Amino acid sequence: MSNFGFSELRLVSPYEVAFREARSAVKAQDILAAAREYSSIVEAVSDCELVVGTTSLGPRALEHPLRRLEYGGKLIAKKLVSGSVALLFGSEKFGLSNEDVSHCHWLMRIPAREAHGSMNLGQAVAVCLYEIIRDPAAAKVKPEARRAADAGELERLTDRLEEVLDRSGYVHTRVKGSTRMKIRRLVRRLNLSAHDAEVWMGMLRQILWKLKSGGRE
Amino acid sequence: MSNFGFSELRLVSPYEVAFREARSAVKAQDILAAAREYSSIVEAVSDCELVVGTTSLGPRALEHPLRRLEYGGKLIAKKLVSGSVALLFGSEKFGLSNEDVSHCHWLMRIPAREAHGSMNLGQAVAVCLYEIIRDPAAAKVKPEARRAADAGELERLTDRLEEVLDRSGYVHTRVKGSTRMKIRRLVRRLNLSAHDAEVWMGMLRQILWKLKSGGRE
Repeated sequence: MSNFGFSELRLVSPYEVAFREARSAVKAQDILAAAREYSSIVEAVSDCELVVGTTSLGPRALEHPLRRLEYGGKLIAKKLVSGSVALLFGSEKFGLSNEDVSHCHWLMRIPAREAHGSMNLGQAVAVCLYEIIRDPAAAKVKPEARRAADAGELERLTDRLEEVLDRSGYVHTRVKGSTRMKIRRLVRRLNLSAHDAEVWMGMLRQILWKLKSGGRE
Repeated sequence: MSNFGFSELRLVSPYEVAFREARSAVKAQDILAAAREYSSIVEAVSDCELVVGTTSLGPRALEHPLRRLEYGGKLIAKKLVSGSVALLFGSEKFGLSNEDVSHCHWLMRIPAREAHGSMNLGQAVAVCLYEIIRDPAAAKVKPEARRAADAGELERLTDRLEEVLDRSGYVHTRVKGSTRMKIRRLVRRLNLSAHDAEVWMGMLRQILWKLKSGGRE
């Protein structure tokens, strides 16, 4: 909850031992200290405009719409702009009861393998909250600051590499033309950043210097 | 891992006590039994075409592209179609070292609150794997089987409700016309499914029967 910026934890008849242990956890102290306890779901969700239950299984109460997390998370995020939403999790062992579920507007399920059955509670909460704060726009843009090497930089690198290979006896004179093209293509396929192109240039310059000095120490 | 259908767990110098304890966990036995141990990252990832490191912090090694999970997850899912991908997690306390990170093609970060710092390891793994198996198409379509009540059903319900209100003395004769319109709009705003419209019809019919019989037991 703390990782994803959610602060209001409400517990309905929590198992006291586990709750006390959790309170002594190092992190997220504020959330646990402010957590409120209720004796029933109806009290816990009374001020919420939307109540969503989570389930790891297929639909058991068919009257309730069952939404996949990808879609349900979007609805919740939308609602959160203007009002409070309660996201209900049952115990790891039994999940929510039919009575619990009857307080929900709809149900949501994490698209996990049914074969595995239930999910670890903390992991289920993390996955649901992540989906809610997830930014769809971030999936589309490549958030990268690195500037790609431009054609001029790549051509200078190609020159230098060719010179090194030439000096090393890798390039045979009779195939020189086609080799140059091969090297040029090879260098372009590296998708170098401007920064890395410069590092490679430095390496090649040093190798060339050594080659020219006859490989002597 | 088991929840989201990932099976190959590899551990580099695991803390033996924790690993033994995990092996005795009730669930995901197969994954833990098949988990392989390595003494170095280079061995653990040797057959992987893409190696992605996870970090909870901002970029520390600027040479490495740092991608948000929404975008990185998409790249990983794409790569997984044709080859193996290693997703590296460091220890919860220290994360990946600079040495660890140097084995990665790029880094990925979960869009969590930086103020909180690191995330619980199991939760971080669950969130990353969820993003990889997440279906973007599922966020767009409303995966609902319930058939909405059609206009005819809603009109019959409006008739019945009006009759009940009429019999109950709610509707004054002089405002009957406008009340009918109010009731019609009220019923439409309920967004009833065909199933629920039928249930309401049954209730109203029963109330009407009782009202007609003079409310006698």
